[in-house]
Formats: sequence, C-alpha cells, structure tokens
Amino acid sequence: MPLDSSIPSHLRCPRTRSRRVSDKWNPPVPMYSARGAESIENLTMAYLGVQSKGDDMKGPACAAFQKILQSFKQPDGPARHDLVQFTDGQGYLNLIAVAYWTDPAAYDKWKDRPAIADWWASDDRLKEGVGYFREVLRPRMEQFETIFTHEHGPLEGVSILMGGMSEPILEHGYWGSMRDRLPLSQTDPMDPSGELAVKTGTPSLGGRVIVSGHENVALIRSGEDWSKTEGEERRTWFEDIQPVLLEGMDYLRDDGLEAGCYCNRYVHHMDENGNPLEKGFGYSLWRSLRHLELWAESHHTHLQIFVTFNRLAKKFKELTLYHEVSVFDASAQYFEYINCHPKTGVLRAV
Amino acid sequence: MPLDSSIPSHLRCPRTRSRRVSDKWNPPVPMYSARGAESIENLTMAYLGVQSKGDDMKGPACAAFQKILQSFKQPDGPARHDLVQFTDGQGYLNLIAVAYWTDPAAYDKWKDRPAIADWWASDDRLKEGVGYFREVLRPRMEQFETIFTHEHGPLEGVSILMGGMSEPILEHGYWGSMRDRLPLSQTDPMDPSGELAVKTGTPSLGGRVIVSGHENVALIRSGEDWSKTEGEERRTWFEDIQPVLLEGMDYLRDDGLEAGCYCNRYVHHMDENGNPLEKGFGYSLWRSLRHLELWAESHHTHLQIFVTFNRLAKKFKELTLYHEVSVFDASAQYFEYINCHPKTGVLRAV
Repeated sequence: MPLDSSIPSHLRCPRTRSRRVSDKWNPPVPMYSARGAESIENLTMAYLGVQSKGDDMKGPACAAFQKILQSFKQPDGPARHDLVQFTDGQGYLNLIAVAYWTDPAAYDKWKDRPAIADWWASDDRLKEGVGYFREVLRPRMEQFETIFTHEHGPLEGVSILMGGMSEPILEHGYWGSMRDRLPLSQTDPMDPSGELAVKTGTPSLGGRVIVSGHENVALIRSGEDWSKTEGEERRTWFEDIQPVLLEGMDYLRDDGLEAGCYCNRYVHHMDENGNPLEKGFGYSLWRSLRHLELWAESHHTHLQIFVTFNRLAKKFKELTLYHEVSVFDASAQYFEYINCHPKTGVLRAV
Repeated sequence: MPLDSSIPSHLRCPRTRSRRVSDKWNPPVPMYSARGAESIENLTMAYLGVQSKGDDMKGPACAAFQKILQSFKQPDGPARHDLVQFTDGQGYLNLIAVAYWTDPAAYDKWKDRPAIADWWASDDRLKEGVGYFREVLRPRMEQFETIFTHEHGPLEGVSILMGGMSEPILEHGYWGSMRDRLPLSQTDPMDPSGELAVKTGTPSLGGRVIVSGHENVALIRSGEDWSKTEGEERRTWFEDIQPVLLEGMDYLRDDGLEAGCYCNRYVHHMDENGNPLEKGFGYSLWRSLRHLELWAESHHTHLQIFVTFNRLAKKFKELTLYHEVSVFDASAQYFEYINCHPKTGVLRAV
C-alpha cells in the first residue's frame, strides 16, 4: 500500500518546492501524524505561567495558578489544557497551563472577557510576589505538523483535539522530514524576517514586558510518555535515554541562544493536584525552522540524543514519543511577562 | 558578496526540484568546489588494482603493478593518476592506480589498444598468483561535485585536471548539500533502479568475473591530507580524528552492505617507489546517493566522525579535507575482477 502523506489531502497544493525524498522513499519504521477535521483552520496555543522562587512562595504561586485554571471555566474557554511544571536555569519554579483552542473566535472572545482581560491587565498582578507570563501562539493548519511513534496514540497536546491519526506516513526518517511534513513547505521556505522586539517595559527592571515576534518563529513541543514502561525498557529510559535528553535540553536552556533557540523548557506533566505524571516534553521556541533543523542535525547535544534513541529504538514497546511543530506569522505571536526574571521565555533573546 | 554556487553556471538549468536551503542560507565557514573548463563533458575514473596476500607475493604484486603503470605511457593514457594502497578485511594487500581522463575518446582509444586490451584479456593474468581488478566509472559533469576546505587547494584527484576553484559556495554546511551540489539534482532525484549483476564468471570460484552496474550507483572519494600538520594539530589528527574516521571506514568495509554500501576502501597514497605519503581517502561505492546520505546522516559510525570533525574544526589550519561525489548511469560502470577473492570490490554485493 502506498504510504500516506503527513500533509492532509485538503492542504495539498501544486508544489513550487520539492520534498527532500522521492515518492519511492521507504522509512525504516512506521510513524503517524494526527488528523483533524477539515473545518479546523488554525490552532491557538496559550502557555499561561506562574513563576516563583523558594519554598515560601510555593503557596502564593499555587493560588495564582488556580486563578488561571478557574479562568478556563469562563465561556469560550480552552477546549483542553495540560498542566506542566519546570524549574528554570535560574532556580525559579514555573507552573504552566497549556491551553488549546481550535476555534480562533472562541479564544478571542475568551481573552477579551472582562474577567480574563482585566485580571491580566490589573496592576495587582505586579504586587503578588510571583511572576506571570502569557505566550500565545496561533499557527494556521498549513503551519502545523505532528509525528507519533504509535498508531493508536495516545494523542497528546493539541492533537487530542484533532482526534484522529493518519496511516503510516512517508515524510519521516530523514533530516528535513519535519519541514516536509509542514503543508506550507510545498511552496514556502519559511525563512525568518524581522526581530523580536520589546514593545512595552524593560526586561531588566521586571514589571510588565510585552514582546512582539517576527515572521516564521518556530515552536517544537517534543514529548515522551514513559508511564507504561516496565522492567528493562523502564531501566533503559531512566538510565540511558533520559539523562542524554536532559543534557541536550539543558544546553538549549542555558546556551541555546547561540544556536537560534529563543527559549527552551523541559517540562513535566502534573495532575490537577500538582502530582507528577510520568510524561514530559521540551517546549522550544526558535528563530526559524532552519535554526531548529541545524541544531538537530549538527549539534553534538542533539546528535547524542538522536543516536541514543536510534540505538535503543528496537527495545521500545511502551515508551511513546511524539512531537508537534508550528511556524508562526509575526501577527500570530503574543508574549507578555509580568514580574518575571529577565531570562524568562523570550526575554533572554531580546 | 552573494555566494557562488557549487553548480557551475553553464550547468545551471530551470529547476523542477528545489535546493534544500533558500538563497539566504549562510554557511558557518567558507568552502569551495573545483571548477573546470566548460569543454569538459564527462570524466573517466579507472581504479586499476593488483591484489595479493602474504610477504611472498609482494614481489609479484609490485611487478604486476608496474605493468599497469607502464600501460599509462601508451598513447591516450590517463591525464593523471594517483597511487594508493590498502589492506582489505580479508588481509589482502591491494595496490591501486587511480587514473583519470577528461577526454572520453582518449580513454576509449587507450583501453582498446592491443597492448592494453590484450594484456587484460589474456589468460596469463589468471596464472600469476595475484589478482587484478578494473573498476571504471564515467560520470557526466552533471553527475559530479566536489568540496574543498581550503581556497587555494591543494586540489586532489580528478579535480587537479579541472585546475580551478570556485568562490565560497552556498551549498554546504547542511545535510543534503552533497545532493544540492550535483547539477543533476536540479531536475532528478537520482533514485536507483536495477541491480548489480554478474555478467561473466562465478565470484566464489575466482577466475575472471565481470559485473554490470545499475542506474545511479554513487561513488564518494573523501580525503584528508595531514602532511603539513604540526604540533597540537598533528596530535589531534592522529589521536582524536583518525581513529574515529577509521572506525567508520572499517564498519563500511565489513558491514556496510546493510546500509547500501557496495564497497569501501580507506586507502593511503604512496609515491612511485611505494613509500607512504601522509594523505588518504575513503573510496566508497553505494547503491544510491540516498543510501550514502542516510548512512552519513543517521548511522552512529558516521555521526561520530562528523561530531569529532566539527568539534575540532577550529583547530585545523594545515589539515585539508575534500571529497568528490559522482553518480553514474548504468552504462557508465565497468567492474572486472581476475583471480580476486569474493569480497573484493562490488563482488561482495552480488
């Protein structure tokens, strides 16, 4: 049977740019892409965070985070959300609710509701001893792709809203396949233009800072679920894979700017009560898809991850891997930081 | 100044396939391609070898090799040649003269001269206790590319016949750049078709064996010259780089067939008296460019070479690196083995 394309049929168009591989390409193992309804035209991804330092501030941080979670219950709230946390390179705890909408009008109505808009805009947010941030990213479906190792999922993240899975796809198993899975790659090199710019505030002074994006910023959410692993597979995850993965993530977190990585967080999922779940993902914002490609393809920190995963891939039965990659128009990015330290999110890059 | 293209201007044509990177790509360091006269339409590369085992046979092997070298003095002989040697995985010494022509008619006349044709065809070659082989490969210029690390050379191999060097080129510093440097990649994916086939003889019985090629077999000659290195750079070459390189070459020599590598020899240059020179290259024949790409981009043995070279690249001043890559029409390949063991050259692949 001919392989499926990661690009859904309604987004295929006459190419002005070729795929890196020909139709005869035969990937070594099957992989899959999430499939959604044709009616979905774009996605809204809101990373809404609370930042705090020290045990004393954990209580206020959790209370602040609950406020964000309550806001999801307002009309037109997100269709789903993930709760994650990570401790950043400066030792701050960041609690993040990752909220997703497939209806852009719903998100617009939700964020403009007084209960939401006024709360974020209030000067009270500047006086609570915790930081807040909103990173809102809205790709068109032409600017979005996913890959999953397992036919029957589990789907993750925004893909859960898409609800379906492709047949085994052609576009994987070679460098450049990430780009080839993006429908827009049929006609557009997705080169970056413009620069991140501070629109409001001064990062070094804290307070409220708003940063504007630029054309073709790229985001990868690349995740692993080790909750079902047992025995030898579980040992392999903890002893052989996770340490190498985290080393690469730490490089991007601390020094990624030299490679074009604006921000990198390796986050762990948690339940509504803050209990850790056995899955996580790297959230990684890049100047462009090309910068992400270059790091992945040539930097020893990623090649080490790649070689380790490849070498051990045959042992994996229950460990599931996935990623979603998006590229954004400048107008489809919103970055706001309130009382955050100057290495938070894209602040380190401005 | 805009970057030069590795594809010479007279071989540029309207693309039906895109380069992997856009015109804005800016490689991290400058690299160069050899440039020849427009009048050169194709190249002839003849790897003419003598194979022997054990010290007792070194004398007869050298005498046989001298016969080959004398044949170069016949009218229409090669425009230049390299002398190299390597000991293969079965412990045989292989002395190889690598002869180059830029005039296909000259090669055809030379090989058909009775002094050449009759000598190779003679049954006497079966009775001398040494093996002989001829691997003759003839790319069109659309099927040929080179890359050099140093602006002023030294040129190597067939590139010496081309005589010139490009300005810094655009097509390097990313996976896929090898393909993008081949002029034919503008319009052709260069997928393989057909299979190697024994036309005459039985490899396991020795004697005379002729093998026919198939469409889009690929050859890489990838070389290093460490003769001018000194001090720390020389130590780095011998202790950090060469061992990793040879490990990858040994993998291809012994187990490369699983990756689509028909034959791999890491050879050392020698002078006319058999004295070793401080340069060498990998001669590596592949089922297709795609197979070569896949190994280079994903197999740990090559990624180890790649990471080591990249990590140490800043230390290199006098170590020069280059490669030449060709893709061949089925009709542009000739493989003949006389009294060679069945792992010689492409015999291991049939």
